[in-house]
Amino acid sequence: MSSLPATVPAIAASPLIASDIVRGTCRLLAAHGHGTLTEVTLRTGRRVDVMALAPDGSITVVEVKSSVQDFRSDRKWRDYLEFCDRFFFAVGEGFPHDILPDEPGLIVADRFGAAILREAPEARLAPARRKALTLKFALLGSQRLTRTLDPEAC
Amino acid sequence: MSSLPATVPAIAASPLIASDIVRGTCRLLAAHGHGTLTEVTLRTGRRVDVMALAPDGSITVVEVKSSVQDFRSDRKWRDYLEFCDRFFFAVGEGFPHDILPDEPGLIVADRFGAAILREAPEARLAPARRKALTLKFALLGSQRLTRTLDPEAC
Repeated sequence: MSSLPATVPAIAASPLIASDIVRGTCRLLAAHGHGTLTEVTLRTGRRVDVMALAPDGSITVVEVKSSVQDFRSDRKWRDYLEFCDRFFFAVGEGFPHDILPDEPGLIVADRFGAAILREAPEARLAPARRKALTLKFALLGSQRLTRTLDPEAC
Repeated sequence: MSSLPATVPAIAASPLIASDIVRGTCRLLAAHGHGTLTEVTLRTGRRVDVMALAPDGSITVVEVKSSVQDFRSDRKWRDYLEFCDRFFFAVGEGFPHDILPDEPGLIVADRFGAAILREAPEARLAPARRKALTLKFALLGSQRLTRTLDPEAC
């Protein structure tokens, strides 16, 4: 979706925390017209870091890995594949790419933006799953917006 | 969806502005599990005051009328019927109900909440229209949330 930015922010060499990578990733996706939500709990009980919905209805899941230890403690990333059309890992600069599996897409992010280093293969969702996920996404986004704008609402 | 509240806030007798009626209406809908968005522009170019999405996927549109003049200047409410399963007018206390058409549902609201005085008849959307509206709702809600949380994002 994007080439590497021409300039790298000076802060990029600082240690990144997961929320920085999430923010930069969401900015990249938003710049391509996607709606994004963070920390979306699936019906399996697992929680994805970023879920994005494209104008064509396709769904992307991004799992953020802020450290090698964070990645090594996660043995279940394949469980996310059935909940999206495309799956990416997102890491900060300096993360050793060679420990990541080749199969998913790869995003490198900082607090201010991100770039796709490797596109994710597409595995299209079944229509019923897509319908359910889109409805969930629509409810969750609008309810979070309402709570942000009117915190006393239910 | 709701009976009249047992207590009527003291402010209810004050003149209401449209944004008060919108807020109370959204609170009522949120209390019933709906996601709500305000000021949603349809592909016809017309803008609905409130669009709500229920957990079962059904879509409600609410048109707010803050004054008799506001209602009399609107000859096009029937144009909204093809974009929802249920259509309501929402008014403040003291609005003369007898000038409103009998066909739509009727909500009476103040700044703090709302009650349904008359349920809206259901006219189910065609599947393709529902799919398109749900996708639009999901994108709009998440994009507004992102802009609220990270104003510098695209």
